[in-house]
Amino acid sequence: MIYFNNDYSEGCHEKVLEALTRTNLVQTPGYGEDEYCARAAEKIRKLCGREDVAVHFLVGGTQANLTVIDAALRPHQGALCAVTGHINGHETGAVEATGHKVLPLPGKSGKISAEQVRSYVLAHRADSSFEHMVQPKLVYISSPSELGTLYSLAELEELSQACRELGLYLFLDGARLGYGLASGENDVTLQDLARLCDVFYIGGTKVGALFGEAVVISNPAIGEDFRYLIKQHGGMLAKGRLLGVQFDALMTDNLYVTIAAHAVALADRIRETLDELEIPYLVPGSTNQIFPILPDSVLEELAKEYVFCEQERVDDTHRAVRFCTSWATREENVDRLCQSLREIAKIR
Amino acid sequence: MIYFNNDYSEGCHEKVLEALTRTNLVQTPGYGEDEYCARAAEKIRKLCGREDVAVHFLVGGTQANLTVIDAALRPHQGALCAVTGHINGHETGAVEATGHKVLPLPGKSGKISAEQVRSYVLAHRADSSFEHMVQPKLVYISSPSELGTLYSLAELEELSQACRELGLYLFLDGARLGYGLASGENDVTLQDLARLCDVFYIGGTKVGALFGEAVVISNPAIGEDFRYLIKQHGGMLAKGRLLGVQFDALMTDNLYVTIAAHAVALADRIRETLDELEIPYLVPGSTNQIFPILPDSVLEELAKEYVFCEQERVDDTHRAVRFCTSWATREENVDRLCQSLREIAKIR
Amino acid sequence: MIYFNNDYSEGCHEKVLEALTRTNLVQTPGYGEDEYCARAAEKIRKLCGREDVAVHFLVGGTQANLTVIDAALRPHQGALCAVTGHINGHETGAVEATGHKVLPLPGKSGKISAEQVRSYVLAHRADSSFEHMVQPKLVYISSPSELGTLYSLAELEELSQACRELGLYLFLDGARLGYGLASGENDVTLQDLARLCDVFYIGGTKVGALFGEAVVISNPAIGEDFRYLIKQHGGMLAKGRLLGVQFDALMTDNLYVTIAAHAVALADRIRETLDELEIPYLVPGSTNQIFPILPDSVLEELAKEYVFCEQERVDDTHRAVRFCTSWATREENVDRLCQSLREIAKIR
Amino acid sequence: MIYFNNDYSEGCHEKVLEALTRTNLVQTPGYGEDEYCARAAEKIRKLCGREDVAVHFLVGGTQANLTVIDAALRPHQGALCAVTGHINGHETGAVEATGHKVLPLPGKSGKISAEQVRSYVLAHRADSSFEHMVQPKLVYISSPSELGTLYSLAELEELSQACRELGLYLFLDGARLGYGLASGENDVTLQDLARLCDVFYIGGTKVGALFGEAVVISNPAIGEDFRYLIKQHGGMLAKGRLLGVQFDALMTDNLYVTIAAHAVALADRIRETLDELEIPYLVPGSTNQIFPILPDSVLEELAKEYVFCEQERVDDTHRAVRFCTSWATREENVDRLCQSLREIAKIR
Repeated sequence: MIYFNNDYSEGCHEKVLEALTRTNLVQTPGYGEDEYCARAAEKIRKLCGREDVAVHFLVGGTQANLTVIDAALRPHQGALCAVTGHINGHETGAVEATGHKVLPLPGKSGKISAEQVRSYVLAHRADSSFEHMVQPKLVYISSPSELGTLYSLAELEELSQACRELGLYLFLDGARLGYGLASGENDVTLQDLARLCDVFYIGGTKVGALFGEAVVISNPAIGEDFRYLIKQHGGMLAKGRLLGVQFDALMTDNLYVTIAAHAVALADRIRETLDELEIPYLVPGSTNQIFPILPDSVLEELAKEYVFCEQERVDDTHRAVRFCTSWATREENVDRLCQSLREIAKIR
Repeated sequence: MIYFNNDYSEGCHEKVLEALTRTNLVQTPGYGEDEYCARAAEKIRKLCGREDVAVHFLVGGTQANLTVIDAALRPHQGALCAVTGHINGHETGAVEATGHKVLPLPGKSGKISAEQVRSYVLAHRADSSFEHMVQPKLVYISSPSELGTLYSLAELEELSQACRELGLYLFLDGARLGYGLASGENDVTLQDLARLCDVFYIGGTKVGALFGEAVVISNPAIGEDFRYLIKQHGGMLAKGRLLGVQFDALMTDNLYVTIAAHAVALADRIRETLDELEIPYLVPGSTNQIFPILPDSVLEELAKEYVFCEQERVDDTHRAVRFCTSWATREENVDRLCQSLREIAKIR
Repeated sequence: MIYFNNDYSEGCHEKVLEALTRTNLVQTPGYGEDEYCARAAEKIRKLCGREDVAVHFLVGGTQANLTVIDAALRPHQGALCAVTGHINGHETGAVEATGHKVLPLPGKSGKISAEQVRSYVLAHRADSSFEHMVQPKLVYISSPSELGTLYSLAELEELSQACRELGLYLFLDGARLGYGLASGENDVTLQDLARLCDVFYIGGTKVGALFGEAVVISNPAIGEDFRYLIKQHGGMLAKGRLLGVQFDALMTDNLYVTIAAHAVALADRIRETLDELEIPYLVPGSTNQIFPILPDSVLEELAKEYVFCEQERVDDTHRAVRFCTSWATREENVDRLCQSLREIAKIR
Repeated sequence: MIYFNNDYSEGCHEKVLEALTRTNLVQTPGYGEDEYCARAAEKIRKLCGREDVAVHFLVGGTQANLTVIDAALRPHQGALCAVTGHINGHETGAVEATGHKVLPLPGKSGKISAEQVRSYVLAHRADSSFEHMVQPKLVYISSPSELGTLYSLAELEELSQACRELGLYLFLDGARLGYGLASGENDVTLQDLARLCDVFYIGGTKVGALFGEAVVISNPAIGEDFRYLIKQHGGMLAKGRLLGVQFDALMTDNLYVTIAAHAVALADRIRETLDELEIPYLVPGSTNQIFPILPDSVLEELAKEYVFCEQERVDDTHRAVRFCTSWATREENVDRLCQSLREIAKIR
């Protein structure tokens, strides 16, 4: 079987593994207070073009989301997000477990707009019983989103502007950020994110690391005492250096974006084949995730050789599914998939 | 500088690293549903002599503690532990953050007794305003304890018996379990733990792994839906296989205990030197942690070459400190430390 | 100004006040362990036709909702409810503050169906990543609902049946239960509720008491140690007897339903006028809440003399509003409102 | 039986009842936004000598404690208090249920000192692993304390000074504040409390009201959005006016202190008898609580006629118990108790 079901089926990129191996027996202080973490953080601050952002390394995405949101909010406040947002549907209520309601907005291809945020917040404030409702205080977005779509620079500028006007925090979940930065459609840089978001993270788990997310905090109100919160939520690795070593490797010589570009190029190749075969998409895309709508019969045939993800049933005879490439995807496997698609489409 | 301050200064044992390297590009399902986790769990079940225990792999100790306790308790219930217990003092209120009070008992060298538990619980039940107090429902112990001491089989039998009589759960934190199993004074086996505890864990982070704790659940009341709770608390690694691969290596050919025995042997050598020099201890010990009480002047001298942990001030001129050995400690460094101790003691 | 905006604008019914006054200086034990509470609970058990239900008195609705739900659920579990459910939108995230996600279903006039519950739960269980989602474990309904509608006996039987099949709890919020029992369309008794729900409550705050809700627990799994949970959530009144005295009065000689019937009769009179004037409703109703859709100009006129609630804008020139009657509503005020409606409608 | 076991055995003072009766059918807005609450708050602000404090009315003490502490703290922060503090031992972990650890200090007759606070906080900050421990951020004291003792003005000044220097909040639980203000030893005014505390409350439940505590917030950092938090924790009474009406009555013509003085005078009379009989105290006192140490045989005899509280066993033949007077205590009952004490003492 060839796996296209996600972007975390393998371990880590060889350069990351090499760095872990090389440093394995070096003695360092624990809990992320080592020189590898310091160096990786410094590289990220440089890439963000700001010396004043705080950088913390966390083990995974759910951990990062719940820790950031818990650090940012007072008890009566909640997080606005798209109904498809990872915190709303795929983290077993991790945010609610810290006491905060997730306030879902109808998404458009996995994204929400400044207009939606503004209108929700103003309606809340205008309601005479506003104190009986959770106060919206943070906007959570993911880019690439759970549906593989990207926020443009213009969209982020507008969201950021709305949040600042309204006194809300903007938090960008970048679990797949590398694949966004590498997309042909992307016009956003790390500098933009550090400027426009109050907090965001650079995902390592899905982009070349064994695990790990680098949380970048521009707004000191969220960053205050942040390490206490990491520890409290069980996210502080005794051997924190593992995160530093990995991000140090990924942030060296543009490795992070280079390996993501590999995944995007292969995804583009699959998209070309699907376009050629005039296969429609659930959502258009330009990153490493592809959501074609295919007849059940074709999917049944493909499932004999390939592993992919079920997304949703579209009609009685068609389902949308997800194919993912990654930094580890092998070119010959993509060629074979494209070949299979053409053959099965022919028979159909 | 030579580090004796803790047992997590290095990465992982070479066999663990080798296993991670060898399997790095193998494709597996995510979230711990891979064959490595299955195999490691199977080995642990065998070592526990029970096919009916559930085994889950978590990233770290605080994560394991908070997830287990949250899974076990209803909202009004709390966890009894020694005042020195890790959950009471060194996890930034992680248990309280899940809503549960930690109920500290005065410890004796880091340990609590069946008698203390019984007397606390019976007093609670006899109090006319019992409903105004947190209900004790779980006993948390650590062995080796935070002070390096071990529970004997007899002590565990009594605690287990008391818990069963009273309807409480017994939870053993085995963050340093290997060093306990390898101690010359130990008379407890994994089978005993699986039989006497409702839940315990086998610590990897401090005993040869990069990170990871294997939680063993004997009582199905705690284990029900446990994976939901892992996910909710941000402890479910996308590449869960990393935990499986590491524990598979550690549980093969007795590696886990063998490497711990190395640490204990070296600690014994330090203890012999201290005994020779007639240096007293804060707490007697037989595992990889040593708590000598030394004059400030000696500690000042030692601090020039060695890193160790401050434990507590004993009097105006003496402090108790902690020296740790580990699976990674080098024999020549221990020899050098012993030599230094003798020399400094001589001058004094 | 005449208040039709809610059913809690006054204090309490004269017989309740008389009972409070009469017992004011009697000495009793605190925290609800007095004879008034015992007697009121006994009367409720009789009315429910079951000696084995537990009855607890809580101060208010939000308190009752959060305490019951927190008592019923393990950390990873959530509560299904209509999107209009009080716990979803009007309790400032009180349920989430106890760590549990509210899982909203699209409502139909404020109600949800057995079919919706069954389909949600089965979809959850069939999803391959079910552990990444909150587990549905309790169904929260309110009857009368937030939109004044009632569950019929048949609907409750079906919901109850679905919950039992699926292993979920059924919880009915009866904040306005009296007005439901008094409705001409009602076919449900307290016995039915005790039989079909795992837990429900009889609302006093809106039906004649100064404050207070009587929680009736049929399922011992929810009721275990319930008083600890009341205390923990700050809901245990030192002078718990106040709740006992009030419910004792309300449950004597059918007072509870009699005074609710007064409110419903007056609401019916308003509905007759609205029907006569061919004014449409947002939601049809038979209890003490009425949701007419009226032109902005009419509402502007009415607002000069009457206080009512804004519900929602229907189109550019019409809004739905809420008029409430209560046990305290005076007949002449209803007559005057009907008169005003006729006059304003005429001019329009 | 004559009840001396607590100060909440009766309903409310006749003037409070009269006010409730008189206003019973007046229509008001809900949730504390009525004129009675406004007026009572205004009176309290006047008594505090400050127009800029916020006043909120909550139903009970546990509710007040958990809401204030949750409003004040970020997730990693905890509340210092005496080990005997109500939040530590008698609220079923209500503070922990909001996620915050209670940090107990050894008390001296129920009180803690500025010195203890300063030393705890400085030790926390000096510890190299401070991020692994809960951050102390609020000091909770009660005056009168759970043992009936009072903080002097000098003690409060010092605590306040220490808190300000260290950046901590000072929170005074005044559940029995009236009995403190009425004590012969008291040298503290409401103005002092408003000046020295960040937040405190004036207890009504135990001093003449049916229920209710008036929370006074001097520090806007705690008060921001406070009503959201009241609602979220289930503490917002629909008929909030009940609290306003009661506190309006209590704050009129010094009623609050006058009725408390009655209780203190009667307690003084009991103390005189005990002194006369040379009976020792667990803790000396000057408010409405008395903690004599008596032989078991005497207590057995007294228990035939009087209800009192068990406090603790002192030795094999003696127990400390608690006698409480209140605004409602009848003079003849006190005389009878004194008489009984003298008689039983004689026989002994």
